[in-house]
Amino acid sequence: MYRIAVDIMSGEKDESELIAGALKALKEDKEIELTLIGEYDIISEELAKTDYDSKRLKIENADEIITMDESPIKALRKKKNATVNVGAALLKKSEVDAFISPGNTGSVMAAGLLRVGRIKGVSRPPIAIQFPAAEGSTLVLDNGANTDCSPENLQQFALMGQLYAKNVMKIENPKVALLNIGEEKTKGNNLSKESYQVLSDDPRIKNFIGNVEGRDIFSDKVDVVVTDGFVGNVVLKTTEGAASFFLDLIKESFKTNLRSKIAAFLIKPYLKKVLKKIDYRQYGGAPLLGVNGIVIISHGSSDSTAIYNAVKTAKKTVKEDIVELIKVELEKNEELE
Amino acid sequence: MYRIAVDIMSGEKDESELIAGALKALKEDKEIELTLIGEYDIISEELAKTDYDSKRLKIENADEIITMDESPIKALRKKKNATVNVGAALLKKSEVDAFISPGNTGSVMAAGLLRVGRIKGVSRPPIAIQFPAAEGSTLVLDNGANTDCSPENLQQFALMGQLYAKNVMKIENPKVALLNIGEEKTKGNNLSKESYQVLSDDPRIKNFIGNVEGRDIFSDKVDVVVTDGFVGNVVLKTTEGAASFFLDLIKESFKTNLRSKIAAFLIKPYLKKVLKKIDYRQYGGAPLLGVNGIVIISHGSSDSTAIYNAVKTAKKTVKEDIVELIKVELEKNEELE
Repeated sequence: MYRIAVDIMSGEKDESELIAGALKALKEDKEIELTLIGEYDIISEELAKTDYDSKRLKIENADEIITMDESPIKALRKKKNATVNVGAALLKKSEVDAFISPGNTGSVMAAGLLRVGRIKGVSRPPIAIQFPAAEGSTLVLDNGANTDCSPENLQQFALMGQLYAKNVMKIENPKVALLNIGEEKTKGNNLSKESYQVLSDDPRIKNFIGNVEGRDIFSDKVDVVVTDGFVGNVVLKTTEGAASFFLDLIKESFKTNLRSKIAAFLIKPYLKKVLKKIDYRQYGGAPLLGVNGIVIISHGSSDSTAIYNAVKTAKKTVKEDIVELIKVELEKNEELE
Repeated sequence: MYRIAVDIMSGEKDESELIAGALKALKEDKEIELTLIGEYDIISEELAKTDYDSKRLKIENADEIITMDESPIKALRKKKNATVNVGAALLKKSEVDAFISPGNTGSVMAAGLLRVGRIKGVSRPPIAIQFPAAEGSTLVLDNGANTDCSPENLQQFALMGQLYAKNVMKIENPKVALLNIGEEKTKGNNLSKESYQVLSDDPRIKNFIGNVEGRDIFSDKVDVVVTDGFVGNVVLKTTEGAASFFLDLIKESFKTNLRSKIAAFLIKPYLKKVLKKIDYRQYGGAPLLGVNGIVIISHGSSDSTAIYNAVKTAKKTVKEDIVELIKVELEKNEELE
């Protein structure tokens, strides 16, 4: 059984919406057991309205949430019974195998780091996000957990990203690259020049292809892109911004006149497929790699589809035992030092 | 008269294509005088095919180019008669008011810095690029000239960007912001935290609105976005990558079947307007701000439209005397120190 806990209360959407996503996953997959974390009364009231396999579902009461504008670490200390504290505690005690939360990213991260703890040999756990690419997707890490990084941090991101791409995303011999502003190894800032050397010298990174640029993320040239959390987060938000800007322009152009409206009507079903391809919800959350348990950070605006997919991602990640794989690979770091 | 030199030989496109763009601008605007830089024979042969106002056009022979894969500074020293050396020399001697080149970005930059020189008070000239936004456009700087920056560098970018936005882009009281990964002033990496303080303390930055995120570049929330050249260049290339990825998906969806093909036929003219909006060519090149003359860096793949627009941008920039404005504003830096 794969035991997955879902924080259904700290996202932007209603609890009922998030519970619906979790229940859909529960119904489809008999190998999972769910723990819903949130206010007991709200959850049980919601569950009473529907049919589900109660033997595979528990409720864990948590009556506080950490809001988007709270300082994560302070709030984590003050609100003992916040959903993220409760979820991290379950993971720490091995009562669940994975914990999913769409709450304040900083608070989920802090709960992972402080309550669950890092794997030996991992200095700074990164947030790993899948970006859509021509075929499949590209894993980019870090996406905001660590704003100032050393070459050794990036080296660890590369090792963990490689393991995740190979085992969870099922990419054979994943191509790993450093995000830079040119392909030559002499390009970039101090961090990227030093990191290039460290990454290319590490024999554990099997398929290091050197530097890639921002545009390559969306191509099939690379599978794992390594960068510091500041740049990674800028990339993420720039991508979101560019996509929604472009989409708005297209929608606007469809409204021009009768002719364009007819075109819009005709193309709608095909455009939907395009939108699905670039929809973050299909990837269902980003793992915080390198903590001693599976922590999945979902988008704040996650709906039932996003939560459904996050549960699927969590199961895959537990099944492939990514924590153990990282332990084996990264503990070598300690020995090397 | 506005005297503008155009390097028509070091771009990726044919000389004839680039000359056509320059001649179009010459024909339309009687206030400009052009100097075409490149191999004399090629240019005169091309000019012989067409009608133009020969009193307002000169040829300046340059028989070498610096290719995209050459090391800029070495090549600049070795190839004395390279287009970028010739253009920078004309600017230095005040024989022209502006110099446009679609060549190797590093070489145009180095020619600007080494041959034309910096304005007193400017430590690191940034490349300023206009990104499309819902209404108008947003100026982002630096886009790759300076990979590792100090808060004082970013402060200078803000001051120069503000002047350019106000005087050339004609934005009243431009909103200036720092690119970051959250809006709170405590967010970000060391550079952004320190820079926030420096920018908000500088009374010359009239309308500092604090931090913005990558997605805000495409909105009307901000007019001038300041960041280091590494992050700026990643933003630029990520935007290009996301836009072309999205566009490919849409084109693909149009090919699905007869219905989608009819829709494509109907929507084509309206979609063209969308594409124009996000077409880098409309902005016609990016100024290298802070050098002692107008240097415009155009895209390597610039065609006649891009060169035509670059000439228009160059004229506006000369007309508003941006170099003098930067001198007056930035020389105060020296006094402050």
